[in-house]
Amino acid sequence: MESDERYMRMALELAKNAEGRTSPNPMVGAVIVKDGRVIGCGWHKRAGTPHAEVNALAAAGDLAEGATVYVSLEPCSHFGRTPPCCDALIKAGVKRVVVAMTDTNPKVSGRGIKKIRDAGIEVTTGLLADEARKLNEVFFKWIEKEQPFVTIKSAMTLDGKIATRTGQSKWITSERSRQYGHRLRDINDAIMVGINTVIADDPSLTARLENGGRNPIRIVLDSCARIPLDSVLINDGKAPVIMAVTEKAPEERLRALADRNVQILVCEEDTNGHICLQKLFRQLAQKNICSILVEGGAALMGSIISANLADKAYFFIAPKLIGGETAKMAVGGEGIGELSDAVELFDTSAEVLDGGDVLIKGYMR
Amino acid sequence: MESDERYMRMALELAKNAEGRTSPNPMVGAVIVKDGRVIGCGWHKRAGTPHAEVNALAAAGDLAEGATVYVSLEPCSHFGRTPPCCDALIKAGVKRVVVAMTDTNPKVSGRGIKKIRDAGIEVTTGLLADEARKLNEVFFKWIEKEQPFVTIKSAMTLDGKIATRTGQSKWITSERSRQYGHRLRDINDAIMVGINTVIADDPSLTARLENGGRNPIRIVLDSCARIPLDSVLINDGKAPVIMAVTEKAPEERLRALADRNVQILVCEEDTNGHICLQKLFRQLAQKNICSILVEGGAALMGSIISANLADKAYFFIAPKLIGGETAKMAVGGEGIGELSDAVELFDTSAEVLDGGDVLIKGYMR
Repeated sequence: MESDERYMRMALELAKNAEGRTSPNPMVGAVIVKDGRVIGCGWHKRAGTPHAEVNALAAAGDLAEGATVYVSLEPCSHFGRTPPCCDALIKAGVKRVVVAMTDTNPKVSGRGIKKIRDAGIEVTTGLLADEARKLNEVFFKWIEKEQPFVTIKSAMTLDGKIATRTGQSKWITSERSRQYGHRLRDINDAIMVGINTVIADDPSLTARLENGGRNPIRIVLDSCARIPLDSVLINDGKAPVIMAVTEKAPEERLRALADRNVQILVCEEDTNGHICLQKLFRQLAQKNICSILVEGGAALMGSIISANLADKAYFFIAPKLIGGETAKMAVGGEGIGELSDAVELFDTSAEVLDGGDVLIKGYMR
Repeated sequence: MESDERYMRMALELAKNAEGRTSPNPMVGAVIVKDGRVIGCGWHKRAGTPHAEVNALAAAGDLAEGATVYVSLEPCSHFGRTPPCCDALIKAGVKRVVVAMTDTNPKVSGRGIKKIRDAGIEVTTGLLADEARKLNEVFFKWIEKEQPFVTIKSAMTLDGKIATRTGQSKWITSERSRQYGHRLRDINDAIMVGINTVIADDPSLTARLENGGRNPIRIVLDSCARIPLDSVLINDGKAPVIMAVTEKAPEERLRALADRNVQILVCEEDTNGHICLQKLFRQLAQKNICSILVEGGAALMGSIISANLADKAYFFIAPKLIGGETAKMAVGGEGIGELSDAVELFDTSAEVLDGGDVLIKGYMR
């Protein structure tokens, strides 16, 4: 039905209100409709707080009896930090439940739908399932592959430089692009950079949005724990810091870092003697870090590309040219030798942002 | 009037039929209207052949008497390779002439409009003048500045590389982008590359469009005349070749090139001992080369950017990533030191082409 689709779209939009706030839970929205009128709507705001269906039922109150509930993901059937939503829907006496998609979380995985059906409630599934899956691309990567969803972000000139030959990089891109970049930090669980970036720029890696923003966990790849102890990010207390090191890191450096409340993660090395990114990502996923934004530097970006570990890319391209044989590039490392092995993007889009920069986005794998 | 604008747009569209074919003349289109009906239309097809107004008048025949003529550029008043269009319009007895813009060619420059007015014909000017000027951006640059209109074109990966670390570059971009690139060759009077590109790729630099195409004059910057004598482009006879050399070039090399019908242009050096591009461009303009497409390599692109000599840029960006510290970039050379000195583009546009590549276009200066 046409109206089914309209209400489901509303549920998807409601879900998105909590983008970057529900981790490690998915975003979910719910709309309750009776006699052609919306009588309640809600969304899941943060892990540990009530789910979308419960918020919508609370809004609808007694009116929910005999109503239709549109929910962007299968209602849960298990006790987590909150009671199962299935039970709440059954108790409220709703007549019909329309679900965008089954939850692939092994703890749910069809059990929610079955429970509601067994209670005699009509259930329709699969409405706007593609949109629902895309909305929670981060969650599904994490729950299905036990790996974080990895986004790479870069900002460069049209001729592919991230700094002039003299090292000037502030600012290549426009204010609008930089705000967009801070929004990406705001919605990712963690941000990751290589140690050379920390040494060169001493960045804070916080989300500085005009109206606040939530700082991501800051992860630094630093095999030998070379980070200067006066670096901003290990002293500002603005968000947790995880230092990924290897066994090469000297004891006394690790102790000094621990004194600054820095979490140390001792990682395995790959065959090149670098931190094995696949294994590190798995470790981070196990810590409920579902999404990571990788901002550089060039060596880390190169490793991510060579190992084909990124899921999504955002490239902000400033419409300016600077040239320079020796000017720095966004993606370095060893690089790919055969063109046929290049990491291809799909669903690519390009838009000119206010201020003139071009944003190219796409997915990998 | 609304209909005036409609007919002028038609004239502009007709003009564009001859894109890349009228040099060193501008593109011009004309539409003749009587009693609300188009009774004739035409465009200037090639230098030395009749102008747009004359073609349109020929189509209209006797009907032209009392009609309105829409023409995208001021009718000429002087004898060139064809007689003045003004005279033809007056003789045909048209009632009104609507002109998009005055011709800034010093040989015309208002004299055409004056002559028609003096003959008692009503003249309206300035309708869609911006569009008319943009249509002939190449011609106006050449006639007003005595310099060719310079377009730079590059094809790169999203991470700004034009080849993998092992030198593979065929093909970074899609078939669609490459056809677009051949179209750029087709509509430019000349194509320019540096000698290193010729040595590395032995290119033909022809316009290979599916349905033909016209080959541009091929210009190679080669101070010391190092070009291998078996290079395709100096032996294939597919289009004229101009070798830009300096006095450093050995006599016997120049003689060998002259034997191959190659034009030699001995250029002045700039302070770095390279060919002075500003002066070379002026020389080429004097040879009626109104437009030049610069395709590389990196050193030449760098020189063009450093001297801010380009008018327009086309960057084809393939949605793929290859990384590599040592992978080649599109724009090299010394490069710009201060970000505030970067060459800025304006009127930037970005579109995803069929096949997935992104085309970023813009103007400089």
